[in-house]
Amino acid sequence: MASNLRIDGDRMWRTIMASAEIGKGPRGGLSRLTLSDADREVRDLLGGWARDAGYTITVDRLGSMFLRREGSDPSLAPVLIGSHLDTQAAAGPFDGILGVMAGLEVLRTLDDAGLRTRRAIEVVNWTNEEGARFYPPMLCSMAFAGKAETDWALARTDKDGKSLGAELTRIGYDGKAPVGGRPVDAYFELHIEQGPRLDAARIPVGIVVGGFPTAGMRIEITGETAHVGPTAMQRRHNALVAAAHVAVAVDDIGWRYAAGEGKTTAARLDLWPNLPGIISERATLFCDMRHPEAGELEHMLAEVATALPDCARRGRCSVEIAERWGFGGLAFDAELIRLLRAGAARLGHATMDLRSEAGHDAYHMASICPTAMIFAPCKGGISHNEAETMSLEDAVPAANVLLDAALVRANRE
Amino acid sequence: MASNLRIDGDRMWRTIMASAEIGKGPRGGLSRLTLSDADREVRDLLGGWARDAGYTITVDRLGSMFLRREGSDPSLAPVLIGSHLDTQAAAGPFDGILGVMAGLEVLRTLDDAGLRTRRAIEVVNWTNEEGARFYPPMLCSMAFAGKAETDWALARTDKDGKSLGAELTRIGYDGKAPVGGRPVDAYFELHIEQGPRLDAARIPVGIVVGGFPTAGMRIEITGETAHVGPTAMQRRHNALVAAAHVAVAVDDIGWRYAAGEGKTTAARLDLWPNLPGIISERATLFCDMRHPEAGELEHMLAEVATALPDCARRGRCSVEIAERWGFGGLAFDAELIRLLRAGAARLGHATMDLRSEAGHDAYHMASICPTAMIFAPCKGGISHNEAETMSLEDAVPAANVLLDAALVRANRE
Repeated sequence: MASNLRIDGDRMWRTIMASAEIGKGPRGGLSRLTLSDADREVRDLLGGWARDAGYTITVDRLGSMFLRREGSDPSLAPVLIGSHLDTQAAAGPFDGILGVMAGLEVLRTLDDAGLRTRRAIEVVNWTNEEGARFYPPMLCSMAFAGKAETDWALARTDKDGKSLGAELTRIGYDGKAPVGGRPVDAYFELHIEQGPRLDAARIPVGIVVGGFPTAGMRIEITGETAHVGPTAMQRRHNALVAAAHVAVAVDDIGWRYAAGEGKTTAARLDLWPNLPGIISERATLFCDMRHPEAGELEHMLAEVATALPDCARRGRCSVEIAERWGFGGLAFDAELIRLLRAGAARLGHATMDLRSEAGHDAYHMASICPTAMIFAPCKGGISHNEAETMSLEDAVPAANVLLDAALVRANRE
Repeated sequence: MASNLRIDGDRMWRTIMASAEIGKGPRGGLSRLTLSDADREVRDLLGGWARDAGYTITVDRLGSMFLRREGSDPSLAPVLIGSHLDTQAAAGPFDGILGVMAGLEVLRTLDDAGLRTRRAIEVVNWTNEEGARFYPPMLCSMAFAGKAETDWALARTDKDGKSLGAELTRIGYDGKAPVGGRPVDAYFELHIEQGPRLDAARIPVGIVVGGFPTAGMRIEITGETAHVGPTAMQRRHNALVAAAHVAVAVDDIGWRYAAGEGKTTAARLDLWPNLPGIISERATLFCDMRHPEAGELEHMLAEVATALPDCARRGRCSVEIAERWGFGGLAFDAELIRLLRAGAARLGHATMDLRSEAGHDAYHMASICPTAMIFAPCKGGISHNEAETMSLEDAVPAANVLLDAALVRANRE
């Protein structure tokens, strides 16, 4: 069923700008880590809007919020649309937020039109998508999809040792609903591209056909504390130096695969004791590797493994891969992709097929229901930076494609 | 005036062992950062012993404690002996502590003998010698020597933004006495060697003739936050990677000078935001360089300066030396050194001349009064490590040399 409905762009923009006032970063962007006071505030704002509109609000045990606009047949599995309201430590106002606010706008547009869909549509705000506070990212959609235990997720701790569960209780979002375990008809997520292609080509709608294969690892390095003064070079085991060799090696591997769009990141390094007068004993380095071709990613990982013994030797420390993980490398649902393309065509918007290079909750949802993503352009592809920005004109076409697809799917027999 | 006095080794050992119970580290050593609750506790312990013995306790505005055993002529400048009770984050029970407790034992030995010296002898416990919490190390002897303003020292902040002044007030050691500005006849400091030479040669007394020239620098690296996923290698400015190049370069320079006892340390690295999903924008790296020859140290510093542009280019970040400092490279007072050698000879102890490779409060005191240091062996030269240890037998000879020299000097006309 095609429709003439269009979202109210100005109204959607106001919700995004209201969110942008909560948890300001040092340079005017956002710094709204998950389960912070600012996260509570934006959750309360979203919940208030949902209550005003008469949607049912369900919070699950991991704090993910589901705003449900009931369908004419409540027994049918709902269509889920959404994304996340948490941000990185230095972020812009659109990453994740656009997807949640576009979802809310879809519901409001249906209200304006007085349309009742067959299936319910639920807008979801996933807890801890970014992983900037609790590791791993996309933790709560992972649990929703049955790929992580709820209790394990609740026990994850931040740098200060605070658990996700305790912080949920602190901000009052320790919901009672079970995590996942219920049928979902389809999941759509609208997100900014976080890459430069759509903006460069001036194409308003990206059809996300899948995700880049991504691998990560936690590398543990062990040396020995000693005084920086009297300890001869020959007696040192400086974990910082060994970690530096690993970071350089991992970066060099990224450059060797850069022509084929491969990339590596030495992303986070924690040292102990990390003081000026003492050689550090422990280093933990988090690395991330991505490549469009799964086979090439395997080669990159093999090169890291090959490089580590030399880093250990030169840094005179033990170096070991303590944990590995991966995501991406999936293809989204072909039928939903056709639906998105058809909707964009009806609406007169040019589209570009893309694979996501970032991780998204949609990756986990894809394992339990038909899933697809829509990208909107963001300026210069800049993201995870307070300079991230986009215009209202860049946001509206993709939001209308989301509306169209959600409506078709929610009225499906 | 020679004497037959000897310290009571067992009594001195008990004071060191009592200190070792306060501020236990994770592996049984000490983790007693300056102005922590544990530092208050050990200060209270020392003060209690001093009060019991009838010494006058003066605390200056920077919290340094002076326990004064009055002389027969209070108008004469006192002899100062001491060291520090604060420790690194992972330390042993002797670094600094031996010098303070040996000083106390000197006073107690004089009490036992009923000896009144002409000049007062004061035992000092310097605040913040280690610099593990407030930068720079040896801050309060620096101010005592008139090389830093007291208000500037009070305003130094730790990693959590707490000031030295506020922390002094919190633990009740915000003294009223002015910092320095008074005559001192001589300063002696007994310390563990923190190097392997005495222990290897089984020589009980090190005569410290001076200090290694030491240079340090704070290097500031600026990149740009971006998403680790969609950001191509060619668009990255990862401050962690640039800092890793600098750390490797600085370490390599240390190895090139290692045969001549040169050494470099990439000692502390602070990153921001330092999260798995985002490229870090800022890195601050603290480096330390030492060499027995001042001219060679200059060459090492020049090599660091030469290496930085390449690190900046490979790391695609700006890299600049934001601050430099230096200490050491001094010779201690020839007359006091003769006094120490003569005392050791009288006591029948073999000695070895050494230069200190670590920094000590004595370096600053040397700029305002005759100053010398005595080293005692510690096992394997291990220090700034919870495995740091020594035996009572290793501690007593050097403490008796301290007693002898302090007594001679305090009875000087």
